Amino acid sequence: MVELNFAKSADGLLPAIVQDYLTKEVLMLAFINRTAWEKTLQTGKAHYWSRSRNTLWLKGESSGHLQLVHRILVDCDEDTVVYQVEQQGGAACHTGHRSCFYRVLQGDELVCEGETLFDPEVVYGKQPK
Amino acid sequence: MVELNFAKSADGLLPAIVQDYLTKEVLMLAFINRTAWEKTLQTGKAHYWSRSRNTLWLKGESSGHLQLVHRILVDCDEDTVVYQVEQQGGAACHTGHRSCFYRVLQGDELVCEGETLFDPEVVYGKQPK
Repeated sequence: MVELNFAKSADGLLPAIVQDYLTKEVLMLAFINRTAWEKTLQTGKAHYWSRSRNTLWLKGESSGHLQLVHRILVDCDEDTVVYQVEQQGGAACHTGHRSCFYRVLQGDELVCEGETLFDPEVVYGKQPK
Repeated sequence: MVELNFAKSADGLLPAIVQDYLTKEVLMLAFINRTAWEKTLQTGKAHYWSRSRNTLWLKGESSGHLQLVHRILVDCDEDTVVYQVEQQGGAACHTGHRSCFYRVLQGDELVCEGETLFDPEVVYGKQPK
């Protein structure tokens, strides 16, 4: 199994950039520890470490919107990865947007782009934070 | 000026994903603090915080390979940004590759893709670490 430089960060977490495997759109960024990395390699489904819940997190475990990993890129320092994924359900963001990066900076404002693809209340049973 | 959630991380640093503004290729990931964010907005040139040198870092200050920021996306939690840039000199990676993510995982190996666009010894005057 390819080893990443988890010792690079004090908390043992490395960033994973998540990109649509066809369009190259950046969908989200999350963090991985060694266990999340191993689980992703073993299953082909993206696993992360949730910093807010302090637990291993299979992306889509609540929503059903799994990320099937088609390709993994590793950077020059082995301290960041890119997951090129097929986003099931169409949306990666808990707000229902396809990408977490659904706002573009225009002057001093953030302007929303793109529609929501699902209603978070229906998928998660409550309003997202 | 749009405020990001720098308080989210203990060290006040947030990840910036850097993407080619035309092809959407992910070129690198670096970290920003509030000063780097403000400098980038003021100048249109990507600034980061160097964790290894512990200093503000204008990307390209040594190599001349500046990143001109065409578009900035902000995520749902305001704790990660995407810079869509025009990479001057063609290569973002200190190894001379266009992208820091020049290796793809194939089984238990990392396989290099793409040629180097410059010789690091010429550009930086010494071998990269």
